[in-house]
Amino acid sequence: MTDLSPTPRSTAGRKADRARTDRAELRALLDEALIGHLAVQVAGSPRVLPTGFGRIDDVLYVHGSTGARYLREAADREVCLAVTLLDGVVYARSVFHNSANFRSAVVHARARTVDGDEKWRALRAISEHLAPGSWDGARRPNPRELAATAVLALDLAESSVKVRDGAPVDDESDMDNDCWAGVLPLRRQWGEPQPCPLLPAEIPVPDAVRTRAPRDQAGTGPRTGSHS
Amino acid sequence: MTDLSPTPRSTAGRKADRARTDRAELRALLDEALIGHLAVQVAGSPRVLPTGFGRIDDVLYVHGSTGARYLREAADREVCLAVTLLDGVVYARSVFHNSANFRSAVVHARARTVDGDEKWRALRAISEHLAPGSWDGARRPNPRELAATAVLALDLAESSVKVRDGAPVDDESDMDNDCWAGVLPLRRQWGEPQPCPLLPAEIPVPDAVRTRAPRDQAGTGPRTGSHS
Repeated sequence: MTDLSPTPRSTAGRKADRARTDRAELRALLDEALIGHLAVQVAGSPRVLPTGFGRIDDVLYVHGSTGARYLREAADREVCLAVTLLDGVVYARSVFHNSANFRSAVVHARARTVDGDEKWRALRAISEHLAPGSWDGARRPNPRELAATAVLALDLAESSVKVRDGAPVDDESDMDNDCWAGVLPLRRQWGEPQPCPLLPAEIPVPDAVRTRAPRDQAGTGPRTGSHS
Repeated sequence: MTDLSPTPRSTAGRKADRARTDRAELRALLDEALIGHLAVQVAGSPRVLPTGFGRIDDVLYVHGSTGARYLREAADREVCLAVTLLDGVVYARSVFHNSANFRSAVVHARARTVDGDEKWRALRAISEHLAPGSWDGARRPNPRELAATAVLALDLAESSVKVRDGAPVDDESDMDNDCWAGVLPLRRQWGEPQPCPLLPAEIPVPDAVRTRAPRDQAGTGPRTGSHS
């Protein structure tokens, strides 16, 4: 799959000019953002909760406790997951044209319960997405932990990406308004690693943690460098 | 309303120790975060989209084009809105205990269509939340724009807040693992304002934009100062 082929529910209704069709943009956004919001219909009303996730090729994985009701309800049901990075606030010459610069993905899928080898690979992908280096550095899941963890797969076939960037777009009749217009960028960066108070002093901060800042940028923005 | 009084669907099922009951924490989180994720059931499957919002007392307002299907579907229906700020990644001594430091609110409500004076106040709250100073600095909505904008109100009565902060919590049997453990904080900050290329050079950056950085912090974290 190279293109995002829209279905009726993954087709941008409003602001269709912001829709992107390159699957590489979807992958890049999912690889950069750390948190998604998963919506599931539970007992007749929608529920949406934040979740970590991991990606392998064109499948997204989420996990949680087997005791979490919304994950049980999601299995084999249609769900929706959105991932959004806010890159800035757009101040226009009219309130109506105020906006946000952002990158956002929306995934529609029937959630599939994952087991066996795929579950192991999925947990590795989720772990390495949130905390790169952990899979090799920390203790891996034991059978009891594996049994207590549910993993769901969301196929990325039916997904959409929207991006807004750049300056405000105002009505011609507002261009002479005596009012500032522009973008206030929002940047994210990693702070200084804070060792656990119980950690022996001789254990150093690993490279994967120490060097995460400039490389991952944690949603610094599409094409801006690290900000210090 | 001073306390968050849980209903069955706003009661934390998992990790109940992370639930907060002080309504002031809900208000503070909603005032700090700029983006929420609104879930609506559309044509038999859940849909979740990012949205700006505004708060007046214990009512949250969202807005959008009257042409946006998911907003039309939301009117007079049960919806769910989640607001999440990611404050850091928690590296534990086992992958199973890896976690994230975050603050998250989930609002369950029947969306109520807003009109008249309340609509005007709601649009002001939404505008001032995203772009403080705009309501007085830029042109306010005209009748055509008002008619093209739908506003929904979500009562905050049925809401929950979860917070995780601090160091990793590991199993006793993992405490001697030869592995780094700690927190990598994630901070956000405003960048330098970027004036619109078409803006006359003599219009200065307003105080509300220039001074936003340290005051609002844009989700810098619960109790940390601005980071530069």
